[in-house]
Amino acid sequence: MMENEKKGSFTLPGEAGYEELTLKMAEKWGADVIRDSDGTKLSDKILESDYGIYSTICIIRDHNAWAKKHLDKLQQTFLCSNQVMAKEEIVVIHILDGYFGEQFKINDSKEAMKYWQVYDRTTDKLVPKSKWRYLPEVGNVIIQNITLFHTYTVSFMAYQMWEEISMYNHITNHWDKEHLMPVDPRYKETQSYLYQWLDSWCKSHPTTTVVRFTSMFYNFTWIWGSSDRNRNLYSDWGSYDFSVSPKALEEFKEEYGYSLTAEDFIHQGKLHVTHMPAGKRQLDYMKFTNKFVVEFGQKLVDLVHSYNKKAYVFYDDSWIGVEPYSSLFPQFKFDGLIKCVFSGYEARLCAGVDVETHELRLHPYLFPIGLGGAPTFCEDGDPTTEAKRYWRSVRRALLREPVDRIGLGGYLHLVVNYPDFCDYIEEVANEFRKIKSMHALEKGADGSVYTLPIKVAILHSWGSLRSWSLSGHFHETYMHDLIHINEALAGLPVDVSFISFEDVKEGLLKDVDIVINAGRAGTAWSGGDNWKDDKVVSTLYQFVYDGGTFIGVNEPSAVEDFSDYFRMAKVLGVDEDTGAKVCHGHFSYEVSEVEGLLPEGSQIKSKENRFLTDGKAKVLVSDEQGPALTINEFGKGKGIYLSSFQLSNANTRMLLNLMLYAKGMDLKQNYITDNAETECAYYPCSKKLAVINNSEESQRTTINTEDGERQFTLQPYETQIIDI
Amino acid sequence: MMENEKKGSFTLPGEAGYEELTLKMAEKWGADVIRDSDGTKLSDKILESDYGIYSTICIIRDHNAWAKKHLDKLQQTFLCSNQVMAKEEIVVIHILDGYFGEQFKINDSKEAMKYWQVYDRTTDKLVPKSKWRYLPEVGNVIIQNITLFHTYTVSFMAYQMWEEISMYNHITNHWDKEHLMPVDPRYKETQSYLYQWLDSWCKSHPTTTVVRFTSMFYNFTWIWGSSDRNRNLYSDWGSYDFSVSPKALEEFKEEYGYSLTAEDFIHQGKLHVTHMPAGKRQLDYMKFTNKFVVEFGQKLVDLVHSYNKKAYVFYDDSWIGVEPYSSLFPQFKFDGLIKCVFSGYEARLCAGVDVETHELRLHPYLFPIGLGGAPTFCEDGDPTTEAKRYWRSVRRALLREPVDRIGLGGYLHLVVNYPDFCDYIEEVANEFRKIKSMHALEKGADGSVYTLPIKVAILHSWGSLRSWSLSGHFHETYMHDLIHINEALAGLPVDVSFISFEDVKEGLLKDVDIVINAGRAGTAWSGGDNWKDDKVVSTLYQFVYDGGTFIGVNEPSAVEDFSDYFRMAKVLGVDEDTGAKVCHGHFSYEVSEVEGLLPEGSQIKSKENRFLTDGKAKVLVSDEQGPALTINEFGKGKGIYLSSFQLSNANTRMLLNLMLYAKGMDLKQNYITDNAETECAYYPCSKKLAVINNSEESQRTTINTEDGERQFTLQPYETQIIDI
Repeated sequence: MMENEKKGSFTLPGEAGYEELTLKMAEKWGADVIRDSDGTKLSDKILESDYGIYSTICIIRDHNAWAKKHLDKLQQTFLCSNQVMAKEEIVVIHILDGYFGEQFKINDSKEAMKYWQVYDRTTDKLVPKSKWRYLPEVGNVIIQNITLFHTYTVSFMAYQMWEEISMYNHITNHWDKEHLMPVDPRYKETQSYLYQWLDSWCKSHPTTTVVRFTSMFYNFTWIWGSSDRNRNLYSDWGSYDFSVSPKALEEFKEEYGYSLTAEDFIHQGKLHVTHMPAGKRQLDYMKFTNKFVVEFGQKLVDLVHSYNKKAYVFYDDSWIGVEPYSSLFPQFKFDGLIKCVFSGYEARLCAGVDVETHELRLHPYLFPIGLGGAPTFCEDGDPTTEAKRYWRSVRRALLREPVDRIGLGGYLHLVVNYPDFCDYIEEVANEFRKIKSMHALEKGADGSVYTLPIKVAILHSWGSLRSWSLSGHFHETYMHDLIHINEALAGLPVDVSFISFEDVKEGLLKDVDIVINAGRAGTAWSGGDNWKDDKVVSTLYQFVYDGGTFIGVNEPSAVEDFSDYFRMAKVLGVDEDTGAKVCHGHFSYEVSEVEGLLPEGSQIKSKENRFLTDGKAKVLVSDEQGPALTINEFGKGKGIYLSSFQLSNANTRMLLNLMLYAKGMDLKQNYITDNAETECAYYPCSKKLAVINNSEESQRTTINTEDGERQFTLQPYETQIIDI
Repeated sequence: MMENEKKGSFTLPGEAGYEELTLKMAEKWGADVIRDSDGTKLSDKILESDYGIYSTICIIRDHNAWAKKHLDKLQQTFLCSNQVMAKEEIVVIHILDGYFGEQFKINDSKEAMKYWQVYDRTTDKLVPKSKWRYLPEVGNVIIQNITLFHTYTVSFMAYQMWEEISMYNHITNHWDKEHLMPVDPRYKETQSYLYQWLDSWCKSHPTTTVVRFTSMFYNFTWIWGSSDRNRNLYSDWGSYDFSVSPKALEEFKEEYGYSLTAEDFIHQGKLHVTHMPAGKRQLDYMKFTNKFVVEFGQKLVDLVHSYNKKAYVFYDDSWIGVEPYSSLFPQFKFDGLIKCVFSGYEARLCAGVDVETHELRLHPYLFPIGLGGAPTFCEDGDPTTEAKRYWRSVRRALLREPVDRIGLGGYLHLVVNYPDFCDYIEEVANEFRKIKSMHALEKGADGSVYTLPIKVAILHSWGSLRSWSLSGHFHETYMHDLIHINEALAGLPVDVSFISFEDVKEGLLKDVDIVINAGRAGTAWSGGDNWKDDKVVSTLYQFVYDGGTFIGVNEPSAVEDFSDYFRMAKVLGVDEDTGAKVCHGHFSYEVSEVEGLLPEGSQIKSKENRFLTDGKAKVLVSDEQGPALTINEFGKGKGIYLSSFQLSNANTRMLLNLMLYAKGMDLKQNYITDNAETECAYYPCSKKLAVINNSEESQRTTINTEDGERQFTLQPYETQIIDI
């Protein structure tokens, strides 16, 4: 049954000029598909080999010739100038100050100027147009009749002159090619041009079996700065701001019956980060753009299909409007989704999408500098250790939920000096195929991997639209408790879903045992103003009272204006004092123990100003600042409070234990290792048991099975699969 | 000139039954006045001695016979029941649950019931009276037609059955007397009774020279709980809540034209802590009560005066409506103000009041258990070390601003076993008289202590009304940065004032060099919504631009709804991200040094999420979380940001250095010690220089004077005074 262990389900990045290497590595890694990468082309020798061929296209760039003739069809965004303080009667603002010169060009056309706005940011009031004018020759706005010592900003439209992924690659990996300009398919002319272009492209690439879109049209928002002390002014992997244009705004007005303004995007210079709850206007704009991307995207996919090629989408970079958990996603008719993964949660994100083929692009990329900033394939680089660490995170997710393929990206020639790395990738590829085949055995027998009867729902403002991911990769979102939790859950033997506050009101809790709400007050993850809705609050109280569990982390359910700051304070038995209760006494407590609940090495640090509401919650972890982990009985259910959650093997096991405890289940279960540094997955139909070592040291562990105890000794990072 | 060094300006607590001890200690400590204490009476032998006699009266208690006949004239307060969750169709709330049984009795009279309110705290909406009723026999409120899984509270009126200072003394010092009930002078009958009582009292106490009021009528709010794990449910030394009654509310309505409700006091169960900004209704009620206390208080003072006795007020305990910095205070016509002091800022509070005699009640009190909770005069107690530490804090304040008298309180017999303590108090008394005489020399010559030309204004919501103190003692308010700053300033050679946001708008900054704003966001100390006023913001910007300095600590000027969270972000060059800017890049920086600015041992810990706004601020202290101390040039002035301020000798000197640096002055000044553990004060007319050691170790220090360098070696806590 495991005959494919050495071959298949692997996509290799081929490289022209390295034909022999390409074919050699394809053989070694068991590749069945060869792909090009951004910046590489495949030679005929490779294209004519027996392998399936993926060709990468980023539909909105690589058209500089056309773009230069249609500079008004470049992609655009709103930008906000620096705040400038009025120290004299006139304020002069050089509006592009602080921005990276090569990225933007001011759009001062009549239809764009209509949207420009000048704000007094001291009062946060719009300044009438009669008080300011724009001097195009110097790029300045002059404001008159100001109030002294108020600050002013100009919100304006700008063209994107340099597509930012290409900019990133140029700057990080020292590319030296022409700067690519992103064209905007919002315009009919662009649409026809791109459609024609893709049509010719398909014609001229007969050997291509899969067209890999990177991704659709609009990149996440990534604004660069002029100072080398602050190059990255803004980057939000979920923001739609780079999709705007006068044309889009006009069409929006037609469709939604009201006009958006610059301030709807600029938002006092804060922009709208994905980590904060979205308002109605923002959601409307997202829906509007999502619909457009799907509509035109679908035409391109149809075109690809008409050439008997498959269309896969790479879910990174220009992913705006491509959210795979959006209800519109199936309309694209993509045949596959490829996700670049540093982490387990990204593997789960990919695995859960309703699409035929799920493929992971593993890290490290074959780039000199890794996306996390490490000198991977430079001097001092250590790609093998990087690969091991990433695989450790991804592997445990793959044991829970299969994907169909894996692969690498980048410049294959870089591996030549790293034979270690080549051997390790061979091992990973084989391991991947083994894991995939185990899932296949279960599927055939209509079963699946053994999962505890625990249904966990992560509750946040975005709900299922942002399943698994927050907004980008782990190293970009590590400051949010929730990404640590998502990553822990990605490999745990429980059912996981992502629900919104609307879902709570619509009764989705009936299929849920445990709700997790985690994050800073006011963020999209804790939920912000959604908690003002008493229906949400009372529904969750009833859910716990009737036997459910609410796990709150950091500032769960926090919102101002009510008696309690945490709206779930009565379930949790814990609340936070924002200052209004500094004269109120707080219950003293002793720290209790629940045997076996907290694995050795698990850690939670308390946060300031948390206190017990009625003194009844059991405090399990506490430090000089106060309680850090508490469990509160509420009706038949429980409220569990954690002041924070930081990913580690021990904390991941702690989370599992808390869920078992919450459900009233024995902490000792079959098919759970007794060593938190290790995990296992059991496939009941085929009676296969996979055991993994998630640590960099050797580990021993014992696993209870229906057939008695099994003991294992695992090398660092090792996977063992046995039959029971 | 220092002939009085051994005698005078000292108030001794006499004790009946210990006549010899009383007279012996009076001699030793140079007392000129003997007083009784709460719970002690002076014997005739003492009363007939040559000493002045202070007699303590707490006008509103010690009238239990009358009180028992007039139970409807006891003092009252609003209380809020626990929040009770509706799990069935009917909610039953036992409204006194959680309160200390002996403190309160429900007032369910018709006129009180009028003010009772039932709230749905899930929606924060009032529940109509038709839906609930009160069952007096069991003390329950029953609510019908509720919403399931909403929580409900009852706000009700209760009599105070046990005056809380008496309660505190009973419980802490194991008193075993009858519980004293506080009577409410808001009622005419009470007023007549108290007036008559005081009249008889004056008649029957011919030897009393000073009547010491403790203090006037209403105690600060101090609510006790039933659980020994949470005995202190609420205590706010500035709150007016214990002065309310149906009568007061009725009179308020007449005077202000609108009615207050229970919710105006209960405020979602949060009550209104002094550390949060007060709203208009709260301020109106305070003004109303202040006026009443002054009006009736003044009658009592007049009565005392009519017996040729003086009237002093003890500014603690029942101090509500007695604020000495209120504009109405002089109308009392008190002859003196006595302040119990743990700290230097309390000495400054006392010294600055417009009254003839300023007296300090030193700690430790002659009580078995000290007010800070230490077993002072019990086994294991160490009253001498306590006295040294308190005197160290108070002494430096007295070098800056004189008071007229000091004294002790409590049970004199407790000192018998502590000869060390008796010797130390003798030393303190002599030192106090020396310091007083130095100020007198300056006053005589129309001068005063040498002060640097630096005028500092502390800016907060309460302005001068809460000069020096926040709300109570240091150990009750240590969690607020500002009390640390006030205490540091209490002994520094600079001018200090306290201003409100109104003052800023009215031009008071013209006499100010440095504005300090310090505290958590939303508190009275940082200012909360006052910062929404653009006039406040622009006035302060102009102040700094023109050469002033704004020192912001923790979350200065923080308020939501604007571009910047710190409204003074552009002056400070620092802001805080509340979550909306988590995708924004931040300027990297290096740590700069300004020679001599940061004394050895000074420390500031950073707080989360602070960042440089435009990268221009100089970062002087930084740790793994970010910048902790920055200086930003703005126009001709400076913005200085400190993430926190914790009192220590080194940090106090750091604050002085920052102020010198801000003013562009040399850090090396005449009459400043070169060792932060020591301080000095110079009296130019008499050419006396006092040098103090604020540490528990010996210290050496050098002081530059107009006549050259002077060197000192000081024993722990030592004071040296030399002529220059």
